[in-house]
Formats: sequence, structure tokens, C-alpha cells
Amino acid sequence: MEREEFLSLYRHSIAHVLAKAVIELYGKEVQYAIGPQIEDGCYYDFVIPKAVTTDDFKAIEDKMREILRRKEDWTCKEISRADALELFKDQKFKTELIRDLPEDEKLTIYYTGDDYVDLCRGPHVTNSQDLLNVAFQVKSVSSAYWRGDEKRDSLQRIYLYVFPSKDELKAHLKWIQEALERDHKKIGPAQDLFMFQETAPGMAYWLPRGWKMYQELLRYSREIQDRHNYEEISAPLINNKKLWLISGHWAHYVNNMFLVPGVTEGTEATDSMMVGEKNYSIETPDTMAAKPMNCPNAMMAYKRTVHSYKELPIRYSEFDVIHRKEKSGQMNGLFRVQEFRQDDDHTFVTEEQIKDEILDIISIADEIYKTFGVTYRAEFSTRPDDFMGDIEVWNKAEAALKEILDQKYGEGGYEINEGDGAFYGPKIDLQIKDALGREWQCGTVQLDFQLPHNFELTYQDKDGSMKEPVVIHRAIFGSLERFIGILTEHFKGAYPFWMCPYQVALVPIREEHNEYAHKVADKLQAAGIRVEADCTDANMKEKIKKFKMYKDPFIVVMGDKEAAENTVSINVRGSNKQIQNVPLDRFVEECVKMNKERTLDLPEAID
Amino acid sequence: MEREEFLSLYRHSIAHVLAKAVIELYGKEVQYAIGPQIEDGCYYDFVIPKAVTTDDFKAIEDKMREILRRKEDWTCKEISRADALELFKDQKFKTELIRDLPEDEKLTIYYTGDDYVDLCRGPHVTNSQDLLNVAFQVKSVSSAYWRGDEKRDSLQRIYLYVFPSKDELKAHLKWIQEALERDHKKIGPAQDLFMFQETAPGMAYWLPRGWKMYQELLRYSREIQDRHNYEEISAPLINNKKLWLISGHWAHYVNNMFLVPGVTEGTEATDSMMVGEKNYSIETPDTMAAKPMNCPNAMMAYKRTVHSYKELPIRYSEFDVIHRKEKSGQMNGLFRVQEFRQDDDHTFVTEEQIKDEILDIISIADEIYKTFGVTYRAEFSTRPDDFMGDIEVWNKAEAALKEILDQKYGEGGYEINEGDGAFYGPKIDLQIKDALGREWQCGTVQLDFQLPHNFELTYQDKDGSMKEPVVIHRAIFGSLERFIGILTEHFKGAYPFWMCPYQVALVPIREEHNEYAHKVADKLQAAGIRVEADCTDANMKEKIKKFKMYKDPFIVVMGDKEAAENTVSINVRGSNKQIQNVPLDRFVEECVKMNKERTLDLPEAID
Repeated sequence: MEREEFLSLYRHSIAHVLAKAVIELYGKEVQYAIGPQIEDGCYYDFVIPKAVTTDDFKAIEDKMREILRRKEDWTCKEISRADALELFKDQKFKTELIRDLPEDEKLTIYYTGDDYVDLCRGPHVTNSQDLLNVAFQVKSVSSAYWRGDEKRDSLQRIYLYVFPSKDELKAHLKWIQEALERDHKKIGPAQDLFMFQETAPGMAYWLPRGWKMYQELLRYSREIQDRHNYEEISAPLINNKKLWLISGHWAHYVNNMFLVPGVTEGTEATDSMMVGEKNYSIETPDTMAAKPMNCPNAMMAYKRTVHSYKELPIRYSEFDVIHRKEKSGQMNGLFRVQEFRQDDDHTFVTEEQIKDEILDIISIADEIYKTFGVTYRAEFSTRPDDFMGDIEVWNKAEAALKEILDQKYGEGGYEINEGDGAFYGPKIDLQIKDALGREWQCGTVQLDFQLPHNFELTYQDKDGSMKEPVVIHRAIFGSLERFIGILTEHFKGAYPFWMCPYQVALVPIREEHNEYAHKVADKLQAAGIRVEADCTDANMKEKIKKFKMYKDPFIVVMGDKEAAENTVSINVRGSNKQIQNVPLDRFVEECVKMNKERTLDLPEAID
Repeated sequence: MEREEFLSLYRHSIAHVLAKAVIELYGKEVQYAIGPQIEDGCYYDFVIPKAVTTDDFKAIEDKMREILRRKEDWTCKEISRADALELFKDQKFKTELIRDLPEDEKLTIYYTGDDYVDLCRGPHVTNSQDLLNVAFQVKSVSSAYWRGDEKRDSLQRIYLYVFPSKDELKAHLKWIQEALERDHKKIGPAQDLFMFQETAPGMAYWLPRGWKMYQELLRYSREIQDRHNYEEISAPLINNKKLWLISGHWAHYVNNMFLVPGVTEGTEATDSMMVGEKNYSIETPDTMAAKPMNCPNAMMAYKRTVHSYKELPIRYSEFDVIHRKEKSGQMNGLFRVQEFRQDDDHTFVTEEQIKDEILDIISIADEIYKTFGVTYRAEFSTRPDDFMGDIEVWNKAEAALKEILDQKYGEGGYEINEGDGAFYGPKIDLQIKDALGREWQCGTVQLDFQLPHNFELTYQDKDGSMKEPVVIHRAIFGSLERFIGILTEHFKGAYPFWMCPYQVALVPIREEHNEYAHKVADKLQAAGIRVEADCTDANMKEKIKKFKMYKDPFIVVMGDKEAAENTVSINVRGSNKQIQNVPLDRFVEECVKMNKERTLDLPEAID
């Protein structure tokens, strides 16, 4: 049996055992809904008369094992819709599922022993003893809505880890543990990089250390974009509904936008929108919304003047703050926020320029991802059924993209998602892989035939005629917030030298070494290195401990010998050995080199 | 007679003549309201049966001169309130003014000839011939509301320039002309720095050139703040009402805030707040507002952890985008916007640290204003009647501020506005003076005893007790948007070398010189100089014309001679002479020096 098939069979079956156990533990009133397989096991959704907590996990696991030891037979039966409705008449979710099926559909049900039956397509094991060697463990319980609809029943979802062997479960738990230790939501506040407050859900406070890192990322992005002739702009964060009507956001994205109502005069005041004497309303001509994307403003910037084909490509990059509304349950540290900045760009090109421009963008992505030591793979999404624009333009554009992808990654070296492009154009997504093997979609390159049309953008071609440019949306980091979250987990808070908030921490051993510490600090700072020093009367070990917590790459200790010889002794992050008595000038030189080259690894020695 | 008294007498009197002229021109139905003196003349507010336009200005001026030539006597009479009401019974505004006075008040009225009478305290001239030498001119007409209240009558306000002599009027008109030529609302778009769009009123689009300048200002500010141990943070732009309730903004500033309503479920849907199926409301727990100031977030950042007296002063600087609602009539280019960034800072100090910290802030202001070549003066605002906090703390703080101001500017070297401080603390405002002699309040240093209290901020003092820090709010540029507007008018678009979007423009004479132009560009860019080149087939004069429009400091022309000898020939902004054949390395060196030293003037020669 293929591994996938095997996992599916066993995880689906274990889900039934979970449901049977929950019913035996909590009684016949339990309503069981659905129990699908997921990445590392399965879950089952229930309505249970009591709230299940971590305290109950052991009882559930024990009951499941007890059930398995009964070695009951699993029997599959075909059944008519009417009989199924009768059989599950006390189970509201099953009843609803059955009712949703076509009248004449034959259904299958699975018995585990005599007393537990589930509506299921199968396949399943034939006897519980087949599951005796499967390793499982209750992972968690959380709430979910029936069919994901917050207006329907609230359910308790019990998650299980399910693996073919104990070793695999153990390895997975270890992986989970590692992921937990890398959790950016813990590392961020621990290293005093950022925080969240209840008064601004999903919107990060960037604290001094974290903001330094953020600025370094911006600087890096700008440095590369400058080299590739991008021009940066900044545009209003709050824009009138009129703009969103043109761009189509009002029609398609309004639920994700933070709306800013206008004020109406007069009699139609409603309590729900009164503040003082002002009556706010969404339906006034001055109703606005915070921008969820930079695109419409970039179109307006392009449109300010007449453009010649000679000027194209025009690349408007933008790091403005954007806002997107998320449901509170979906926010997740820096991974899913309501306020963020992208390394955004809108490039205006002629059709002929598409290929070269995309090649250039991919070369930027190559350079950036390499700097962080992560690999990536590309996904190509092609024309959907509801495409907009000229099919000829689509064909040419897709052919150009395909040629680039073939050339760059080899045929089959990238994934193709047929029909998965946006209605406004085909796109390439870039998925980076982190240290735990997890994939994250960061980069995106999207052609757009729609927005230039909506905004009536033009350029004057060689022959004097006015033509419509194509827009390329692209980002390499994607959301900077999310990217920092990913980097934090990838590096476990031990960031590359060049982007660390402070690159060198200075620890004078005693007060009389403070003067030398100031000298070292001045030298490093003059060379553009970010330095922090602890010149207090705390003892050396405490100082080192604090800087280790911050994961500063170099903790430089200085006592009599170093001060006398104009040297430094360096505790390198992640190493137990100290590099002793490096001449100060040599150390500064090394730091400057690492900064400039954006070196990933720290040195074991400095010769 | 003192000049001020003289101006007041004549301007007030001319206002009466204006009213008399308007009545004679447009009939007895004219309602005349009030006619005060202003900086460069006076105005009068009317309800006139027709809309006055620029076409009518000459007729008004002619009629006024005709009236003056009648040499009528001006007579003042005391009159009872009742008689006054009878006399002005057809004048609704006068009637309202009279009714607002105490019952027993004696009023004075002034006749100009027999047929025009006005309610007025005087004094006035005794005969119209006294005004024959006064120089006046209709400046403009605009609309205004009676008593500034948009719910009251809409009036036509006719403005006059009024000066004691023709020469003074002429000088003033020249000044006005100069101010017009310096108008940043014209220069900005002309140099392609920024623009405004109807869809985001009072919120600037920063175009590539303008945004480069903006970034240079940020870089400069950060450079200085780094040196003075400021730590930059960035915090959410949209915050929940809860935060504004703590800070007091909800109670005192809500009318100036862009509100972001929450969504309510259920039945109380009102049309005015429905979008799709969602019903927005100001009264939900998740109602938010865009931040109009950075203060509350800075308090939250401080509050994240326990602080020791050893850490203070803590200086949190912040360049976040803030939003303040303005009435549409009050917006004015970059001078009054709804969206802007400040070089903001909140410094947390002990009482003892106030003096040193303020000295440090003033030293920063000195340095920054000097860089732009502008002078400034300080205004000190002291404890108001409704002050908050401990009077002893106020006294100490005011004494400290006064000592600094005396020491720095000499006694009498600054203005004192007694009782004009904020309720939360005394403040020092810094007014810079521009090239036209206009004053602009940019810098501000405000002590705050209130916010640390509202947010329950503390630090642990030497003796272990928990104390409340004092907060110093400060900004040197103030709003960066407004500051750029001021600089634009001050420099007439010819900005200092270091902050120009492009510092050097390259003009290869013919196509064969493009290669050398690239070489020059590379050299300059490698040295950190911002360069733009025109390597198209346009002719030299066109290229130079374009770069002159942008006011690039150096327009470098290169032909055979320069390419052969590795030199450049430089057209310096504002000079007609060309500096010829400067060795390229020497030119680069000069640019780097000017950049580093932020030199204000451009050189006449490069030796």
C-alpha cells in the first residue's frame, strides 16, 4: 500500500474510534459531525454536553485503546437514503449531511462493533486489531463552527496526531517541539522586538530592537530596487470610496477593508453612528476606507501625466502601511495581521517588455532568498474560465512566462496550476522553504490586464497611437511583517549578522574597562556597525546572559589584557569557544565585511 | 500717532467706505455685517443680491474713490439700545449684534455723510478727505459664514489691501507676487515632487522625486536622533476606542479623528451604515480610530515592562503616519493636511532630568534650523488656570525651563505667554522665520504630567519606590509635510544640495558622449550622490531646460573635450556662468563634501 493510502485508511479509521470513545465517555447525547484526515492525523467535530479540556485527553486516549483491544469487526453496509435518515434520526449533523445528498444516492455506513455506526465512504480497516500498532495522541481541542459558518452550531473539535509507528509520532512530536521553540510569537517579545496589544488586534508595535531590524530589511530591499531602477513613491493610506469603486475593491473586497464613514447633516441621525453631535454614515460622498492594497494609488500616480513608450518600464515601488480586516480567530502573530507593509511594486510595461521584466524580477528574488539561505520553488497559475481581457494577450503572456520558467527552473521544475490565475492575469508564486521544511508563499509576480483598463491608463507608442500598458504587481518578501515572522522561526531568533538589531554587544569586565569599551563602540559605530554596551556595575556573567538572550551575534568581553593590547575577545553566538585577543582593527574589518556581504554564518575564528 | 494706531484708524474707516460703496452699487437690500481690520487691510461681510466677482472689483474701487472725493464729514453719536434697534431694523446682523449687548449699554454709531451709518466703537477719521491718500485695492472675495458658523447665513466677504501710502501698497503687492511665485502648491507639482487627488483630500501623494527628498529629511533626522540616543519605534496606526478613552482623545479630540466603526450583528441595522450584509456602528467594542497623535502608543510601548531610574531618559522617536480631520475649507496644500508624519518623540524622564533633556532638545533644534539657514525664536507658555497635577512640580518645571531660556536666549530674548500652556504641562514653541519674513511654528517642546498618570506609568527609583515619570513631547520639524511646504517656499524650490531629489543632472551633448555620461554617473553614485542623466536623442538645450525646471543643483554637460580629459563642465543652479573642465574626481569630491557637510550654498568655482 502506498504511504498516502495507508495514512488515509488508518487516520480515517482512528477518527471513528475517537468518535466511539467520546460517545462512550460522554453519553448518547453526543452529536458527532465529521471526522476528516489532516496533515498529521485527524480530527472529529462534536457537540458534547461538557467542555473537553486537556485534563480529559488521557481518558479519551485510554478509552480509545480500550476500544481497540476489543478487536471488534468493522462492517460496511449499503443503505438507502430513507433508511439512513431513520438510522441517524437522533444525529442532527448526519441528518443534514444525508439530506444534502441526491434522493437516489446509495449510501455506505460503517459499523465498529455493534454499537457505533458512522456515515462514511470508507475504506476502513476490517478489524480494530489492525489499528493496535498505530500511534496516536490527542493533540488539542478547539472550537469550530458547523460547516465553518459562524451563524451555525458551535462545535468542539478534537484533534489527534496519528502516525503509522511510535517512532514516527515521536519524531513528529519532536518536530512540533522544535516548531514551538521557534515560535516567533514567543521569540519576538522575548527579544523585545515587537508586541501586540489588545487595543490594536493584529497590528504590531515595533519596539526599538525590532524596528532596527525592520529598517535593515527596508534598506536592503531599497538597495536592490535602486539598482534595478525602481522608483519609490508613497501615497495616501485612506482613500475615498470613489477610488475603490474604480479599482473594483468596493465591489469585491469591501468586507476586508477598514471603512471610514463620512458625516451627514440633519435629521436622519441614528444612535449607532452618533458621536457628540455628529452623525456618521457609510453612504456619504466623503466615505473613505484604509487601503488594503497599494495598486489603485499606484495607478493614480502613473496617470498624473502623459507617458511615452520611451519611459517604460516604469516601476513604482511602495512600502506604505496597508490594512486588511481579519476575523479575530484568524489572526496569528506576524503571520496573519491586520496592518502591514509589503515590498510592493507596480511596474508598467508594454506587452513586449513582459518577459525581460519578469526575468529581472526573478533575478531579484534569487538574490534576496539566497541572502537568507532559503530555497524556493515556483508555481505558475494560468488563465481561469472567468478571465478578463483579450485571449491573444493572455496567450502571449502565458507563453512568455512559461518560456522564462522553463529556462529558469527546467521543464517540470515548477508547478503549474491550470486555470488558477487571477481573472485579471496569470501569475507566478514563489514558495520559500524554512529550516523546518515548511513552505511559505512570499514572492508573487502577477500580470494585470484589468487595472490599467479600469483606470484608463495609456502610453504613447512609437507610431503616436495611445496604448494601454500592462501592469506587473510583484513582491518578494510579501508582507514584511509575515516575512520577519518566517525569518524568526527559520533562524530561531538567531538572525544573520547584517540584520540583527545590535550586531555587537560590549561587556567591560569591570568599571575600569568602560573607557576602553567606549573606544571600541566608537570605532565600530564609525564603521556602521550597530553596537550596544553594558557599562553598568552588573557582573560580567549577568551582562553576557542578557546579551545571549537577545542573541547578539558577537558578545565582546574586555578586561585588562584587551584594553592594554587593543584587542577584543569574542563570544560568538552558538559557539562555546571564545575567540581571544583579536586585534580591534581586524575585528572591525571583519564586521564591516560581514555587513557588506550579508554573510549568513558567523566565523569560528578571526585570523 | 503710532503706526499701529494709524493703521487701525484708517483701515477701520476704509471698511466703512467699502460698505457704503457696496450699498450704493447693489442697493438698500444689502445686509452688512462686520468689517474688521486684518494684517494687510480689512474686509467686510455682506449679503448682496448678486455674486460679486473679480469683474466687479474695479467698480467697487471706483465707487469708493468717488465717495472719498465727496469729502463727507464723519460724525459719531451715542445712542440707546432701543434707538439703535429702530435705526438698524432692516439690518439683521446689526440687529443681532445689538441684541447681544447688555440692555443698558450705550452704543456709538458713525455716520459717513448722511446716508450711511454703522454701529461702531470707532475711532474714525473726521472727514473722508483724510483718507484720500490712503492706498487701497480690492484683494479678493470669498464666502464666509455669519459668526463662522456653517449653520448660519452664508456671506460674501470682500477683502481690501489697505496701506498708508501707494509705495507701501506696491511693496506689499510685490511681496504677495513673490509669495505666489514661491507657492509650494505650484512648485511641488511643477517639479513633480507631490500631488493631491480629489479621492484623498489633504493627503499627499509623494512622487518619486519628492519621496527621495522626504527620505533625505528622515535620514537627517534619524542621524541626529541616533547621535542623541533616541530609539525609534513604530506603532499601530488604527487603535481601539479603549486606547483613546484612556488617553483622553475620545473626550477631547474625537471630532478631529477618522473613526473606524465596528460591525454589529442582528436587528438594529440602519441603512446609513449597511454595506452588503454588514451593519457598521460607532458604538461597538471594536470601534477604532486612526491615530491623530503618537502619544498613547508611545505610552503603551513604555508600559510593556518595568523600568529602573537607571534607564531614564528613554526617548521613543516615531515617524508613523497620523491622521487628523480638517474641514475642507481649511486644507491648504502641505501646510494643512489630513495625513502626515512628524519627527515625533516622547521622552520619559525623572523630574531632575527635565532641564538637561530640554537643553539637549534645544541643541538639536539649533543644529537642524541652522542646517536650513533659518533663524527662530522661542515662545514660553506657562501654567493655565485649569492646570492638572501638582503645583510644586509645575513651579519646578517652569523654573527649569525659564533658566534654560534665559541662559540660551537671554532675558527678554524670548516671548512669554503667561497662562497659555497646555493643561498637562508648560511648553516651549519654536517659530522659524522664512525668506519672506513669515513665521512658522515648527518646533515644540511640551512637558506632560497628565499622560503618564492616565497610563499609570512608573519607574523604580534608587530607593526602590515606584514613581511617575514626566513625559516630554517634542518635534523639531513638526509635520514633515508642512516643513517641506515651508522649505519649498523658503528656497523657492531650489533646495539645499543634500536634500535635492537629484543632486547632479548629466547632459551628454551627443549620443557618442553617453558612454562617458555612464562613467560619470557610476562614479557619482558610488560616492552616494543622486544622479539623473538624459541619454536620449533630445538636443542639449532641451535637456538643460528640463533639468533647470527641476532645479537640480548641478547640470553637468559633457562633450568631446570633457570625455577626452576626464572632466566635467558644470552649470550651477542660479548662476549663468559655467564652471568648465573640472577634473571628474575633484567634482565627485566636492559633491561628497557638500553632501556630508549639508552645505547651504552652491559653489561659484571648484578649484
